[in-house]
Amino acid sequence: MIELEVNHSPFHRLIGLELTRAADGEVEMRLPWRDDFRRQDGSDWYHGGIISALIDIAGDYAIASKLGRWVATIDLRVDYLRPAREGTLTALARAVKVGRTVGVADVELRDGQGAVVAIGRCAYSTTPA
Amino acid sequence: MIELEVNHSPFHRLIGLELTRAADGEVEMRLPWRDDFRRQDGSDWYHGGIISALIDIAGDYAIASKLGRWVATIDLRVDYLRPAREGTLTALARAVKVGRTVGVADVELRDGQGAVVAIGRCAYSTTPA
Amino acid sequence: MIELEVNHSPFHRLIGLELTRAADGEVEMRLPWRDDFRRQDGSDWYHGGIISALIDIAGDYAIASKLGRWVATIDLRVDYLRPAREGTLTALARAVKVGRTVGVADVELRDGQGAVVAIGRCAYSTTPA
Amino acid sequence: MIELEVNHSPFHRLIGLELTRAADGEVEMRLPWRDDFRRQDGSDWYHGGIISALIDIAGDYAIASKLGRWVATIDLRVDYLRPAREGTLTALARAVKVGRTVGVADVELRDGQGAVVAIGRCAYSTTPA
Repeated sequence: MIELEVNHSPFHRLIGLELTRAADGEVEMRLPWRDDFRRQDGSDWYHGGIISALIDIAGDYAIASKLGRWVATIDLRVDYLRPAREGTLTALARAVKVGRTVGVADVELRDGQGAVVAIGRCAYSTTPA
Repeated sequence: MIELEVNHSPFHRLIGLELTRAADGEVEMRLPWRDDFRRQDGSDWYHGGIISALIDIAGDYAIASKLGRWVATIDLRVDYLRPAREGTLTALARAVKVGRTVGVADVELRDGQGAVVAIGRCAYSTTPA
Repeated sequence: MIELEVNHSPFHRLIGLELTRAADGEVEMRLPWRDDFRRQDGSDWYHGGIISALIDIAGDYAIASKLGRWVATIDLRVDYLRPAREGTLTALARAVKVGRTVGVADVELRDGQGAVVAIGRCAYSTTPA
Repeated sequence: MIELEVNHSPFHRLIGLELTRAADGEVEMRLPWRDDFRRQDGSDWYHGGIISALIDIAGDYAIASKLGRWVATIDLRVDYLRPAREGTLTALARAVKVGRTVGVADVELRDGQGAVVAIGRCAYSTTPA
C-alpha cells in the first residue's frame, strides 16, 4: 500500500503542490500562488498549463486512494470555464469508477476566490503492471 | 499582429520553453530536460503535467500563428501513448480548423528518442474579445 | 423563444426519443428500448452509438433550455462506464456553464436498471448565428 | 479471429452501415444518406448523433482489424468541424496505438461533398475479457 503524499515527485516540489485530504476515492489538493504561474508578465491569471497539470495529478490520487497503488493516465479532458485568478488553487477529485481495467475520475478546480475555474475528466489504467 | 515568442510568460520561463518554428498554422516547440520534470525521484520519465501543459501551449500558438492574436482554450484532450523519457521534448502543433468562433489544433509530442509519447486535441475560442 | 420538443427532428423520431423535463438548464430525456438498438443479434446490450447520440442531444437541450435557442456542438466526450442493458435509457443533462461564446453541459445516462452506464461532457457554441 | 463485417449488429442494419475496407489498423466505412438522418424536417444536414455513432464504430473496427477481436470503448471525443450535408458519409479510421491494455484510434469523417465534417479520437480497452 503506497503512502499518499506528494513530495516524492520533483515536479510536485517544483510547483509547491500540497495534499490536504485523501480517503476512499476523494482527494483535495492545494496549490499556493507563485509569480512563476502567471500567464503573462503583469497578469494575475494562472497559466493554463498549471491547471491541466493539477487536474491530472488530483484525478490520479483519487483513483490511487481507492486502489492503494499508482495508476497510469490513459487520457484526460480539461474544460476551462473562466480565468483562474491569483490565490491558492484547490482541486477536488472524486473517483467515478474504479474497474478491473479502467478508472475514471472527475476533478473540480477552484481559484482563491472560490470560483470553479476548470473541470477535468480523466481515465486511468487500473490493470496491475 | 502579435509577435510569436514565448518569453512574455513567467510560466514559460519557469519550464524553459523554446519556440523553434511558427508559420501559418504550424508550430514547433522544444522543452529541454530538467531534473525538476521527473515524475518521481530516481525516475527518468517526465511528469504528465509537463506534457499536458506543453500540448495546450503548442496548440494555442498554432491557432495564433493563423490569426495573429492570442486565443483562449475552451477544452483539450490529451492521450498518453507511452512514457516520455529524459531528453528534449518536441511538440508539433497544427491548426485543423480556424473558424469564426472556434479553432481546433492537433498536437504531437515526441521525446528525446523520437517516440510519439502523447497526442493532444484542443479547442480554442476565436471570437475577438 | 424555441419550444423545447423533440419531434421536429426525423432522427429523434427514428429512435423514438422522448423529452420528459426541461427547465432552466436541466433536462431529462428517455429512450425506450427497441430491438434495433442491440449491439449484436442475441445481445441485450445497447449499441454504443445510441448512447453517444443521446448524450449529445441531451446536453444540447440543457443549454437551449437556458438560452431559448438551439446551439451547435463544438465537441463532446463520452465515457462508457458499464454496458447499458435492455430497458428505457434516461439521460439527465445539466448546464455547467452558459457563457457569451461557449456553453458546457454534463450528462449522466442510466439504463433500465438504474445503473449509470455512461457520462458525457459537451461544449457548445453560444455565439448567436 | 473475428470476421470484420457489420451485419451482425441490429443497430448497424438500422442505419444501413457499410464496411468498404479493413486491414491492419485501417478501416473505411460508408453510410448512405437517409431522410431519417435529418437534423430537422426540411434540413439537408445530418443529425450529430449519427456522426458520433459512426466515429465510435469506425474506431472500434480499426483496433479490431489489428487484434482480430472486438474491443470495448473506454471513451471518445468528437470534434464537429462543419455541418455534414446530405450524401454518403465516409469514415476513415486508423489505429494510433494498440497496446497491451489500451488502444487509441483516430477517425476522419467526410460528407458527400468530400469536406471533413468531424474528427474523432477514441480509446478502447484491449485487455482480453
